Amino acid sequence: MKKSHNITLLGAGLIGTFYTMTIHGQRSRDRVHTVCALADDEAKAFALKWEIPRWTSDLAKAVRDPDTDLVIVGLPNNLHKKACLLAADAGKAVLCTKPLARNAAEAFEILKAVEKSGVFAGYLEDLVYTPKTLKSLASVKNGALGKILWVRSRETHPGPHSAWFWDKEIAGGGAIVDMGCHCIEIIRNFIGKDVKPVEVMCAADTLVHPIQAEDSGIGLIRFENQAIGQFEVSWTFRGGMDLRDEVAGTEGTIWLDHFLRTGYEMFTAVGQGGYVAEKAEGDKGWLFPVGDEVHELGYVHMFSDMFDSLDEGRRPLETFLDGYIVNVIIDACYKSALSKKWEPVRLKEWRAAPEKGKSGIGPKIEAKKYLLIKEERMPDGKTKLILKDRATGKVIQKMKEGVGHEKKR
Amino acid sequence: MKKSHNITLLGAGLIGTFYTMTIHGQRSRDRVHTVCALADDEAKAFALKWEIPRWTSDLAKAVRDPDTDLVIVGLPNNLHKKACLLAADAGKAVLCTKPLARNAAEAFEILKAVEKSGVFAGYLEDLVYTPKTLKSLASVKNGALGKILWVRSRETHPGPHSAWFWDKEIAGGGAIVDMGCHCIEIIRNFIGKDVKPVEVMCAADTLVHPIQAEDSGIGLIRFENQAIGQFEVSWTFRGGMDLRDEVAGTEGTIWLDHFLRTGYEMFTAVGQGGYVAEKAEGDKGWLFPVGDEVHELGYVHMFSDMFDSLDEGRRPLETFLDGYIVNVIIDACYKSALSKKWEPVRLKEWRAAPEKGKSGIGPKIEAKKYLLIKEERMPDGKTKLILKDRATGKVIQKMKEGVGHEKKR
Amino acid sequence: MKKSHNITLLGAGLIGTFYTMTIHGQRSRDRVHTVCALADDEAKAFALKWEIPRWTSDLAKAVRDPDTDLVIVGLPNNLHKKACLLAADAGKAVLCTKPLARNAAEAFEILKAVEKSGVFAGYLEDLVYTPKTLKSLASVKNGALGKILWVRSRETHPGPHSAWFWDKEIAGGGAIVDMGCHCIEIIRNFIGKDVKPVEVMCAADTLVHPIQAEDSGIGLIRFENQAIGQFEVSWTFRGGMDLRDEVAGTEGTIWLDHFLRTGYEMFTAVGQGGYVAEKAEGDKGWLFPVGDEVHELGYVHMFSDMFDSLDEGRRPLETFLDGYIVNVIIDACYKSALSKKWEPVRLKEWRAAPEKGKSGIGPKIEAKKYLLIKEERMPDGKTKLILKDRATGKVIQKMKEGVGHEKKR
Amino acid sequence: MKKSHNITLLGAGLIGTFYTMTIHGQRSRDRVHTVCALADDEAKAFALKWEIPRWTSDLAKAVRDPDTDLVIVGLPNNLHKKACLLAADAGKAVLCTKPLARNAAEAFEILKAVEKSGVFAGYLEDLVYTPKTLKSLASVKNGALGKILWVRSRETHPGPHSAWFWDKEIAGGGAIVDMGCHCIEIIRNFIGKDVKPVEVMCAADTLVHPIQAEDSGIGLIRFENQAIGQFEVSWTFRGGMDLRDEVAGTEGTIWLDHFLRTGYEMFTAVGQGGYVAEKAEGDKGWLFPVGDEVHELGYVHMFSDMFDSLDEGRRPLETFLDGYIVNVIIDACYKSALSKKWEPVRLKEWRAAPEKGKSGIGPKIEAKKYLLIKEERMPDGKTKLILKDRATGKVIQKMKEGVGHEKKR
Repeated sequence: MKKSHNITLLGAGLIGTFYTMTIHGQRSRDRVHTVCALADDEAKAFALKWEIPRWTSDLAKAVRDPDTDLVIVGLPNNLHKKACLLAADAGKAVLCTKPLARNAAEAFEILKAVEKSGVFAGYLEDLVYTPKTLKSLASVKNGALGKILWVRSRETHPGPHSAWFWDKEIAGGGAIVDMGCHCIEIIRNFIGKDVKPVEVMCAADTLVHPIQAEDSGIGLIRFENQAIGQFEVSWTFRGGMDLRDEVAGTEGTIWLDHFLRTGYEMFTAVGQGGYVAEKAEGDKGWLFPVGDEVHELGYVHMFSDMFDSLDEGRRPLETFLDGYIVNVIIDACYKSALSKKWEPVRLKEWRAAPEKGKSGIGPKIEAKKYLLIKEERMPDGKTKLILKDRATGKVIQKMKEGVGHEKKR
Repeated sequence: MKKSHNITLLGAGLIGTFYTMTIHGQRSRDRVHTVCALADDEAKAFALKWEIPRWTSDLAKAVRDPDTDLVIVGLPNNLHKKACLLAADAGKAVLCTKPLARNAAEAFEILKAVEKSGVFAGYLEDLVYTPKTLKSLASVKNGALGKILWVRSRETHPGPHSAWFWDKEIAGGGAIVDMGCHCIEIIRNFIGKDVKPVEVMCAADTLVHPIQAEDSGIGLIRFENQAIGQFEVSWTFRGGMDLRDEVAGTEGTIWLDHFLRTGYEMFTAVGQGGYVAEKAEGDKGWLFPVGDEVHELGYVHMFSDMFDSLDEGRRPLETFLDGYIVNVIIDACYKSALSKKWEPVRLKEWRAAPEKGKSGIGPKIEAKKYLLIKEERMPDGKTKLILKDRATGKVIQKMKEGVGHEKKR
Repeated sequence: MKKSHNITLLGAGLIGTFYTMTIHGQRSRDRVHTVCALADDEAKAFALKWEIPRWTSDLAKAVRDPDTDLVIVGLPNNLHKKACLLAADAGKAVLCTKPLARNAAEAFEILKAVEKSGVFAGYLEDLVYTPKTLKSLASVKNGALGKILWVRSRETHPGPHSAWFWDKEIAGGGAIVDMGCHCIEIIRNFIGKDVKPVEVMCAADTLVHPIQAEDSGIGLIRFENQAIGQFEVSWTFRGGMDLRDEVAGTEGTIWLDHFLRTGYEMFTAVGQGGYVAEKAEGDKGWLFPVGDEVHELGYVHMFSDMFDSLDEGRRPLETFLDGYIVNVIIDACYKSALSKKWEPVRLKEWRAAPEKGKSGIGPKIEAKKYLLIKEERMPDGKTKLILKDRATGKVIQKMKEGVGHEKKR
Repeated sequence: MKKSHNITLLGAGLIGTFYTMTIHGQRSRDRVHTVCALADDEAKAFALKWEIPRWTSDLAKAVRDPDTDLVIVGLPNNLHKKACLLAADAGKAVLCTKPLARNAAEAFEILKAVEKSGVFAGYLEDLVYTPKTLKSLASVKNGALGKILWVRSRETHPGPHSAWFWDKEIAGGGAIVDMGCHCIEIIRNFIGKDVKPVEVMCAADTLVHPIQAEDSGIGLIRFENQAIGQFEVSWTFRGGMDLRDEVAGTEGTIWLDHFLRTGYEMFTAVGQGGYVAEKAEGDKGWLFPVGDEVHELGYVHMFSDMFDSLDEGRRPLETFLDGYIVNVIIDACYKSALSKKWEPVRLKEWRAAPEKGKSGIGPKIEAKKYLLIKEERMPDGKTKLILKDRATGKVIQKMKEGVGHEKKR
């Protein structure tokens, strides 16, 4: 049976706002009961706005509030470890925003701490939970795309909204640690979480902004079954927030757009003041809002899975182990960006079913004289076959008989 | 403070399924407690599937269940009046699916019954509640589009899923009463609910299906401020479900697509078996699913508004009065389809602020020698003004000076 | 064998510019040899810009230039009759821009004049010639959409670029005569040119601009085979030029977008000065240009068909008879807008194969116990049939056996 | 003044068909006069179909036809060198299809041969000439996007239509040499042809087909001004032909779609037989044709530029030097795919203005206390500034005063 939860929220920034909007959302049974911000007045203002009974700037006190059963970490990256360790120590369930940590070493410490204390721990990777992504994952599991060959995931926008993101020491990096973490986990879900990531190649640059960290990056992840993941991130994109995924399989394709072209288009010559959508640029001309942001970005389904998993004593879709793996991949990416070559993904632990990832993708082999390479309808209406002689290896072509007829254009 | 509701659901068809999926949805505090279907075994199967404690085929018994505080009517159109009157008589809050009734006479009886008994009554017009529509309505209220001139709303698909829809006697009509009711209420919301609908022009045809009712229709609604609403409905569309709205104002435009082109595109050569999306045709080739149907179609926000309104003692966005007005407009449409001319909208009651609708849209009048008709950038890069002399009425044109410069193409 | 043509162009406005750009286009063998504008300096400027050897403001002189073999009429609507009659009298081939005339009476006079003199005459209805439209027409002829039920054609933008369009006396009307003529002819092509238009229903309004003619209109055309054409035109649209067609058939659907969403999207924070695309509003933010306007709008294919038809002695796709029929339909529309009821289309001549249009669309009749109304995959994965008993008329439903299986969502 | 050309076409495959369709196209003044295929009967069939007066299977004879002034090479890659050298030797203008050769060594030989003989030589890279690309290049030159940071170009489809493409020895590689050559040249045009490519990183795989060459690849090209080009190619894509480019600049963005989503959408339950579009899969369900393929794919504008350049004695947009540079980059890509690290681009010749490429992109440096990192409208309607203290390097944030106001959601 579903329970109601009283929650301690650590962090009162944009992500804390989105989390609270979601948790206090429609007909919900759960509430933020205590909020902790870095300064008292910030915490108070947030509490008043969202009707939260208690506020503080003392992390430990917030975590240990005896009236809450769950801690949500929505702090800058450099505080995730401290906050998660406090929660593990207090024996409270803990949900941590992405990325789990600034690097794999911190993430591993966090993982071990919650495993040792035995508390429920969920990784708040919202973009895996968008309704489109969840439904697509189901289609992929049902075989609609055959074997998955290549997954592309992109997040680009003109840059984050809080100062700390731009500070390499606090954030642990730039656009890659900020947004690449989303992409990597989306990729892992589509390729299969029990397929081991093997090596990465990454390019990172600071193209526009006066900062030390990278504002643009692209990475390739090769998995043990030969599948490739590709992420693209940038804080230099102009035009809003570009959030798209593409999945290519032997039998099909999925294209997802989560933000700019989702069937909501508005032209206004006068604007309307106020907020249009996350990372929107300007409020006149053609605009492309989304309907219900916390829903479209996956927050609603994410917290449902987290709270339901907690209630039912099962593992959520996204765990701290996933967060750790993402940090390991990101570390390898930063190394590759410097070494300018492929770098291995060095996981301290790997718990997937070993047989699963072994089977490569590979070309189809069939027991006939010819292997079919390709079949295509030509402009003259005829169908051509490209065949490979299995014995000689020679590639030939022939027209399929009795099919098609000359069409006038 | 929000309460939890125990609900009697009348009807166990597709709409009952969507309603129950929504009400039992993520972290919800509300439950269907009793379900009533037309046959006992149907009710039982539905109850078992959705973990509903009680079931029956006796409408009155279901309505009067002492453990429920709210009745939801999800029955064929010919039973809405009976069900609503039972609820009003039992003193229970009642929510009725669209259309409110088969015609204005029935709808008026329903309206009067709930008003007399004083029960809370909500009109379950889900498409007004889609997240995109709600956000668009806010933009329109904020003036982003200026004055609204024309609203188009379309729902077309290959035809409904239950036999009774196709029976004119049970349904009260065909595609217009089935889907036009959505469109009309979307139009009213964008133009403004206190702007009175004055007259309608409608064409209806039975183009494809072997039925008595119309399978295609188009209608125009003229409002007292000169704005026009246009609805298009059809049960003959091929390619899935086309659900689009367009709003044209003096200062802007909104285009909404709720189904076929919403950023979710899948190609599959093999299919995946099972359900793709409501009214989808086939499961191979290029498919266009939606993420979370009950959310995208407005069910989530609709029930939130209904339950919250009930809890807070306020009027919901969509009331039985709205349902009645829709039925009056539909009656006028059917009359026009026969008479082949514009027909007046004969409302027994009209409760809008009278001054609101009076101000026409009309051309802009300004106190200068010339009225500006148009300003446009030409292919040669120059800007041309079209002007009307206020005294003589003569239309002239002149190039704007100091603007633009010849561009080579 | 193809010949090269020397052309007299009457009119040096935007349409004359587009025509000349096209005729002088890539690797072309044809040239404008004489241009006539309403004023001498205008003619001269145009001639210098486009390297045209001769210019004049004398219509008759231009038409009778002994070195040209073809006259193109690109003048305001009130001069079409005079110009065409001059060309017919001079025994020269004549191409006239749309609409053929201000009304059916003028158009009929023009038609009779060219028929009497026997000159080649082509109606310059470019939007029927867009590459997408031509290919779609071929698909429709090949049966890809089954029987055509409904064709929608829309042209809306913020208003025309020359003063005379806004003057009802010169133009013969407003948005309907200006743009409805395109839509009507697109509709006729898709439904079939030998299917007779029978009656029309039209609503027209002056919503925004300080003019006498309508700036918005919608019309329905019923054809003798029950198919419906629907046009929508407006000079009040905000956001650029909306040019879309939709074709609905018993077996399929075609959606064409000719301008705003054609795979060319640009965001610019700074703009670039100059011209973006016809009727574009502003040059910053998200813009939606087209690649090669004279090609996308059909000018290239239109002139190819005209010149090739002339060379080969055959009838072009669009003739003066088509132009006349369009004017007759527009006259009926204006009448309907005033009478507020359906009005007959009164053609003085009708030359189609009479048997063609007679067969109505109608529901499918098959020799079985049940007529199939509908087949649909349900959310639970099962397939449901809606059937009508041919003897009793009763509508029933049953699940298709052995198909589909319960899917978890 | 424009001349008419008589052409020798070498090759009678799909590309020869597209070329001939274009050259013999609308109102054209040019003709294929001699066609040479690998076999006599193939040449004859092609000649009869396209009304070409002469045919042969003798390359040298075809090239030396005294009645032609221009040779077009549309042969498999392994014959480009032989054909181009024959043309150079015969003193005839020569146009060669993409790629110029199988590798840089062959391409350099070709380049030197035509330079030595002094004949006109054009590189038939059609995708640089699509109308959308040409117009986008003009916008970029006009500064609409600021400095170009990143260009992505993708071509993927289910594999080529002729046997020789699949044979690594004949083609010189797989998907990269076949399609990457398009992408690389598109990238070079957007970044600027006088910006030197410095190094590449490439991953290539054979994921699906039973061939020796790669069927999938991705490459990054770093230019001397820090800009990045990214190409993606595959013969494993399902769903048709995906042809898209994206250009990201400091001030703007361009997205081009050349094939699957260009405003032409068709659903057909029955199909129509025959050809749908290049690389289309299936002919039922939702299909996405293009209007006029030879136009949309750039053939029309390409041949216009080539013939006009020849007539006017100027260099065409795409030259053999461009073809050579593309081959050098591809060679570096194949090397990188093996070495698994960035590899230098080793150009034997580089002729760009040296100062042009030197200026890096780099972050904006301004003479104030703070550098502006970012400005964003928040969900509460306020505007936040992210600033970097130029002296201390510290990143701070503050709200912009007097802007925005709290909005209710």
